[in-house]
Amino acid sequence: MQTFSNNGSSNKKMDDLPGSIYSDSRDFHLKHKGKIEIVNKFPIENARDLSLAYTPGVAQPCIDAVNNPESACDTTAAKNTVIVFSDDSSVLGLGDLQGKYGAPMAGMHVMEGKAALFIAFGGVQAFPMCADHSWCNTEEEKIQNLVNTVRTIAPGYGGINLEDIKAPRCFEVERRLKDLHLGVPIFHDDQHGTAIVVTAGMTNAAKVAGKKLSDMSIVINGAGAAGCATARMLINAGVGNIILVDRNGIINKNDAKTMVHVKDDGTGEHQLLAEMTNKTNRFGGLGDALIGADAFVGVSAPGVLKPEMIRTMADKSIIFAMANPTPEILPELAVEAGAFIIATGRSDYPNQVNNVLAFPGIFKGALLARAPEITDEMKLVSVNALAGCVPSSELSTTNILPKPFDDRIYVNAIADAVAECASKKPSIGLKSKGLKDYNNGANGTPNLHLFK
Amino acid sequence: MQTFSNNGSSNKKMDDLPGSIYSDSRDFHLKHKGKIEIVNKFPIENARDLSLAYTPGVAQPCIDAVNNPESACDTTAAKNTVIVFSDDSSVLGLGDLQGKYGAPMAGMHVMEGKAALFIAFGGVQAFPMCADHSWCNTEEEKIQNLVNTVRTIAPGYGGINLEDIKAPRCFEVERRLKDLHLGVPIFHDDQHGTAIVVTAGMTNAAKVAGKKLSDMSIVINGAGAAGCATARMLINAGVGNIILVDRNGIINKNDAKTMVHVKDDGTGEHQLLAEMTNKTNRFGGLGDALIGADAFVGVSAPGVLKPEMIRTMADKSIIFAMANPTPEILPELAVEAGAFIIATGRSDYPNQVNNVLAFPGIFKGALLARAPEITDEMKLVSVNALAGCVPSSELSTTNILPKPFDDRIYVNAIADAVAECASKKPSIGLKSKGLKDYNNGANGTPNLHLFK
Repeated sequence: MQTFSNNGSSNKKMDDLPGSIYSDSRDFHLKHKGKIEIVNKFPIENARDLSLAYTPGVAQPCIDAVNNPESACDTTAAKNTVIVFSDDSSVLGLGDLQGKYGAPMAGMHVMEGKAALFIAFGGVQAFPMCADHSWCNTEEEKIQNLVNTVRTIAPGYGGINLEDIKAPRCFEVERRLKDLHLGVPIFHDDQHGTAIVVTAGMTNAAKVAGKKLSDMSIVINGAGAAGCATARMLINAGVGNIILVDRNGIINKNDAKTMVHVKDDGTGEHQLLAEMTNKTNRFGGLGDALIGADAFVGVSAPGVLKPEMIRTMADKSIIFAMANPTPEILPELAVEAGAFIIATGRSDYPNQVNNVLAFPGIFKGALLARAPEITDEMKLVSVNALAGCVPSSELSTTNILPKPFDDRIYVNAIADAVAECASKKPSIGLKSKGLKDYNNGANGTPNLHLFK
Repeated sequence: MQTFSNNGSSNKKMDDLPGSIYSDSRDFHLKHKGKIEIVNKFPIENARDLSLAYTPGVAQPCIDAVNNPESACDTTAAKNTVIVFSDDSSVLGLGDLQGKYGAPMAGMHVMEGKAALFIAFGGVQAFPMCADHSWCNTEEEKIQNLVNTVRTIAPGYGGINLEDIKAPRCFEVERRLKDLHLGVPIFHDDQHGTAIVVTAGMTNAAKVAGKKLSDMSIVINGAGAAGCATARMLINAGVGNIILVDRNGIINKNDAKTMVHVKDDGTGEHQLLAEMTNKTNRFGGLGDALIGADAFVGVSAPGVLKPEMIRTMADKSIIFAMANPTPEILPELAVEAGAFIIATGRSDYPNQVNNVLAFPGIFKGALLARAPEITDEMKLVSVNALAGCVPSSELSTTNILPKPFDDRIYVNAIADAVAECASKKPSIGLKSKGLKDYNNGANGTPNLHLFK
């Protein structure tokens, strides 16, 4: 049996996590032996069934797909399936399980969970995949191997959801894949899913606070995958000024120690973002960035936002503290310090910011339209569709986003907007159909899939 | 959308196949939109469900798998799933859909069908994958890309079933993958599945004919993936002499035109087999090979075995005419020419030789034992287990193999033997349990999976 050793780092042990939810989850996984199951859509009970589903009959849909590859969207499940693809290099709060712990598929539990969310929330078929590149010698080899692997498998499927790939590797992998124009949507959820939900939440929060996005200054703490993509999307949505901060301080092209994603050709993500952010040329740390800021977006670490920092922000300050499970500041402390609107990643406080609000609908829409890619425009219409799911009359400081389980109409609202944008056709009429209508299948699985 | 063009061969059109089974199969595929479906094993209906299946709880089984990768066999479905992996280079009777027609995923219909057979016959989870290597420039690049792709994804799954990869590419891909010792079984069904079923059938046919394998001379027509592997396995099973024939004639090291799988280092498959076969140093064509032979094994083309050739064979000749759907000779013609036992790939004649008799049980046993590979010994015990499924008292010229749908006890008989062989432990007690017991699930899917 392969031992998954790497960089001399094998045999590292990780401690159990504290708290019953963790041991309960272990028991839950042991009980179910995983979370997804592949079943047949029909019985195979006799020679006739076999000859229709397999030889010799199956030769005909093969021929049809030779003549018209897109026909496979109508005759296979695979071409309507999203692959949840990771290299375990940035798994939840656990970090680089492959690079640090030599465990290239321990994160399969997360990828399988993500597939289960695609199924449960979107009625979108999904299958998990973890890439082992421990045999590659350099970062460049690892990046190119991820690109080659996705390039090789993508044409058979409906989409590729990149997941839990660390920065800056993720930027390079995604850029190279997009440049290949594989004809299959490639979407790094940690980047764009987060960015879409944050931008939708910020759009509504600004309305509640009576602020205009174009007048706002927003500080993003954490300049990895999620932070960088959120910066780009908030800029695309029209935010006046973004200040991006990470452990080295405010990203500033004049402060070399803060420019860590740097490439010789000038296309490093921090280099590119330094040109688009920090219009006020700030230097220093998070506290320096926040003086006078309208909003804080944290995709960073527990407890790093201090009450005294909030006190230096502009009136009606907006705090998105999304470190999980312990946010950058606890909501009660933020309120005490004067924050006007607080959002977290947690379900036990109002305003939960959760990627599940975005990715099922985005892929559902892309599959429905047979979109060859997910464009910036499709991401922006997703923002507007999601923000629009909370009617203006219901917007408040504690209600800026739909609740993930409350009413899953947001899934089809986004899917409809994405499909419309991709196909440039009038609305295909999904908006009015809540996902609740779909939840009659076995085990809570939607049984009215678009592709069933 | 990518157009799947390759080698200037795009825009080739293939004709519809004649016969209602083909148009019926097209309708069947359009109706079901594919053959498999991925579902969740439990509902995700509230924040508690989400925290067990996904964040934050899922971090615990991830940590468990960092400390002990094998634990993922108990806590993910993926690690108990077989990937049906092809490059569409030898699809059914259609040939090289990728290389010849520039269609790297048209064969997905076949791979999805194979996955459906794993599920229906073995209760083994399986997922289809088609590799696009149209962007690789040379045969060596294509081979290495297939190896790299499988190497990258394999650790996350329970096994890799290579499928419909053309010869000699398949030999090189499998050899390189086995040399990597990935800790995950790699099995090329077109080679070894066919070889196992043929060898089991030949074992029983020899008994009925009163012949000893060690005294027999067997002619194999077709020296691609299936023919070469069958030659090796029949030799391993003790057959006295094998004569391998392909379109260039009898494989003979002294006849250069017949040595087409040749490598500079002497490890070409035809080079290796030339050393192990044709002990009588025959030259010429199929007719020359068959004079005095005890058996014919055809993995070749319709109608190539002539009645006059059978008349030159030894008494009680055994004919396995497995070209599909039209065999090398029709059974009625073979009988008229004096054949004693006839087997085909067809379900409408006695003695159907079908790979489904082997691969579900083999992978089921390998997964059950968490075998890191499928060894020659495991293949041989599969032969004996399958042959043993027809009791001696019931053996006859028209009953040398179990019927695929009649009684699926062969699946567990093989699984039991493979698991026992892999684990070197006493029988794990599957033999007595027929798969019929399993067929109570939805859509005829076995609901007593080993891994559910």
